[in-house]
Amino acid sequence: MSMAFDLNERLAADTWTVKDLALCRVLLMNDKRYPWLILVPRREGLRDFHDVAEADKATFLAEIDHASAVLKVQTGAQKMNVAALGNIVPQLHVHVIARFEKDEAWPKPVWGLGEVVPYRPSEIGGLIEVLKKGLLG
Amino acid sequence: MSMAFDLNERLAADTWTVKDLALCRVLLMNDKRYPWLILVPRREGLRDFHDVAEADKATFLAEIDHASAVLKVQTGAQKMNVAALGNIVPQLHVHVIARFEKDEAWPKPVWGLGEVVPYRPSEIGGLIEVLKKGLLG
Repeated sequence: MSMAFDLNERLAADTWTVKDLALCRVLLMNDKRYPWLILVPRREGLRDFHDVAEADKATFLAEIDHASAVLKVQTGAQKMNVAALGNIVPQLHVHVIARFEKDEAWPKPVWGLGEVVPYRPSEIGGLIEVLKKGLLG
Repeated sequence: MSMAFDLNERLAADTWTVKDLALCRVLLMNDKRYPWLILVPRREGLRDFHDVAEADKATFLAEIDHASAVLKVQTGAQKMNVAALGNIVPQLHVHVIARFEKDEAWPKPVWGLGEVVPYRPSEIGGLIEVLKKGLLG
């Protein structure tokens, strides 16, 4: 099986890389309004959530659950939002977003509301280290 | 293990029941703008996607994938959206939505846009029969 994997350009432009798990690349959305990870299975040609190969499904779910549980504990979020939409970016990617009753969009979904607030360069290194350490594997 | 399960009142009010799979109750959102299923694991106390018990995880993922693949084929959708948000309704539920480039919200997520268009009573019986037959188990 070819392991060729190219991250979609738009995902690359909008995120910081956190780490590679066994299946998924974990990205941090560059928007400090929400602690927001994106998991991208490193397989070519996946588009829908149900496209993940049978052999990868257990790992796929375990990595989503792990990222969601870790981010919830690290941030003290009230609720986690997990979503595979992909109407604009065709490469399968799963949003894992920590939500707070005081965040800008609550209780609405986050997409398309307000303006992105990028992290400052001085903030990002430490944050990625914390996330990296929290995510096993 | 107690099998007590009460469907959240808001979910009950906004949907039609399609059928029970091994783990999840499958509902049809009463909004004919989008072919839109909602899967609710019949377990008490689940809120986040990662809250599903280890013993139920494989079934949970298999039922989401099955519902998504079946709805895509039945509707000829361009893209499936799969999401567990739950900022308003606390009971864990997974949206499985068939999306079309010509639908009202495309390419945005569907939540909170425009006005719900309920099915007519004459439309709903046949549609639920088709969905029921398509969904195995």
